[in-house]
Amino acid sequence: MADKSTIVLFSGELDKAIAAFIIANGAAAYDHEVTIFFTFWGLNTLRKDELVKTNKGLLEKAFGWMMPRGADRLGLSKMNFGGLGPKMIKHVMKKHNALTLPQLIELAREQGVRLVACTMTMDLLGLQEEELVDGLEYAGVAAYLGDASNGKVNLFI
Amino acid sequence: MADKSTIVLFSGELDKAIAAFIIANGAAAYDHEVTIFFTFWGLNTLRKDELVKTNKGLLEKAFGWMMPRGADRLGLSKMNFGGLGPKMIKHVMKKHNALTLPQLIELAREQGVRLVACTMTMDLLGLQEEELVDGLEYAGVAAYLGDASNGKVNLFI
Amino acid sequence: MADKSTIVLFSGELDKAIAAFIIANGAAAYDHEVTIFFTFWGLNTLRKDELVKTNKGLLEKAFGWMMPRGADRLGLSKMNFGGLGPKMIKHVMKKHNALTLPQLIELAREQGVRLVACTMTMDLLGLQEEELVDGLEYAGVAAYLGDASNGKVNLFI
Repeated sequence: MADKSTIVLFSGELDKAIAAFIIANGAAAYDHEVTIFFTFWGLNTLRKDELVKTNKGLLEKAFGWMMPRGADRLGLSKMNFGGLGPKMIKHVMKKHNALTLPQLIELAREQGVRLVACTMTMDLLGLQEEELVDGLEYAGVAAYLGDASNGKVNLFI
Repeated sequence: MADKSTIVLFSGELDKAIAAFIIANGAAAYDHEVTIFFTFWGLNTLRKDELVKTNKGLLEKAFGWMMPRGADRLGLSKMNFGGLGPKMIKHVMKKHNALTLPQLIELAREQGVRLVACTMTMDLLGLQEEELVDGLEYAGVAAYLGDASNGKVNLFI
Repeated sequence: MADKSTIVLFSGELDKAIAAFIIANGAAAYDHEVTIFFTFWGLNTLRKDELVKTNKGLLEKAFGWMMPRGADRLGLSKMNFGGLGPKMIKHVMKKHNALTLPQLIELAREQGVRLVACTMTMDLLGLQEEELVDGLEYAGVAAYLGDASNGKVNLFI
């Protein structure tokens, strides 16, 4: 039976998401069955970049406006400088031919990494399935623990 | 023998504490023996909300004043907006009938989750036992490692 | 065979680095084979404190200027107050005879904890080997996963 690994991606920053996907892709290349659970701000990594029309309350709308729409708009956990930091990081990544976050996500999908959105925190932040990219699974903490209990490497990022 | 899981709660933010307790309660529901080790800012989750008279040095007093007193006063790791963010989150949690952080802590206790305060960082931050809620254990890193070495799921939050 | 433990130190803050090294030293004292992987901002923990002359591009130079040079110059993840927070913490640590971060690093080395710098993020942040302290290993995510797959306790800090 293949080794399992799980990552909870709680944080919504570019640098942490890059770290999560590099580890996930590395583990998948090692033939681990890898699952990333996206919860709280980590869900923003999975948002579509276009504005999706939804029918929701004012508070949920406010969260939607204030949170970044998708992997290409995340800030940095340090040295964000109002968005300059991410531009700098993306520039050096391009220079070093490193995969961008959207490319890392695509690679993860190709390698069969399961991307699971936490339904409870989707409710809290008012995020609806139509606002997230296609090809996700939807589950809660019980599903996470089922996987993590058999996981070799379980990280919270 | 029951599976064990451990969480180090280092962070002192509402969203991270909620994530920690949801995972802890989920694991306890799965019959894991769960321990949460509270260290550094995570200790603030365990502070009594009333002001406790203590005899301590000025620096320790200063830390005490500046750090939030208890689970109901924590800020958010993102979109805190000077305390508006936590109010928004609490509002949507109530709307969705999600358990509040104090209720999640209560549930954890009922399920036998062990809440352990890190004595070394209590010293550093000048927190005394009288300032923390009742029913805690007090231990250091050796106790944590004893548990984590046998843990199925070990997270640092 | 000895138990293994791994820590990814992603964060570049004094409090998180202290937590990482206390856990690492504790695990080493338990005869675990411990490896700390330094990636992203965590690499700053390993920088030499003197300015090292290097030949690099402007962006990499800019990162170099803006990031703290070494374990003694890291800020706090909370209550940093423009550098006052770390001074306060260092003061109380001294008062309690707690080991400083440089001392904790020294102890880790003496106990055989392996300190591994992530070469991929060194490239991204423009950090060169001459800028980091001596006695490190250099490796990538594959080496990390090889260790973590056999790890008892694997944390992401």
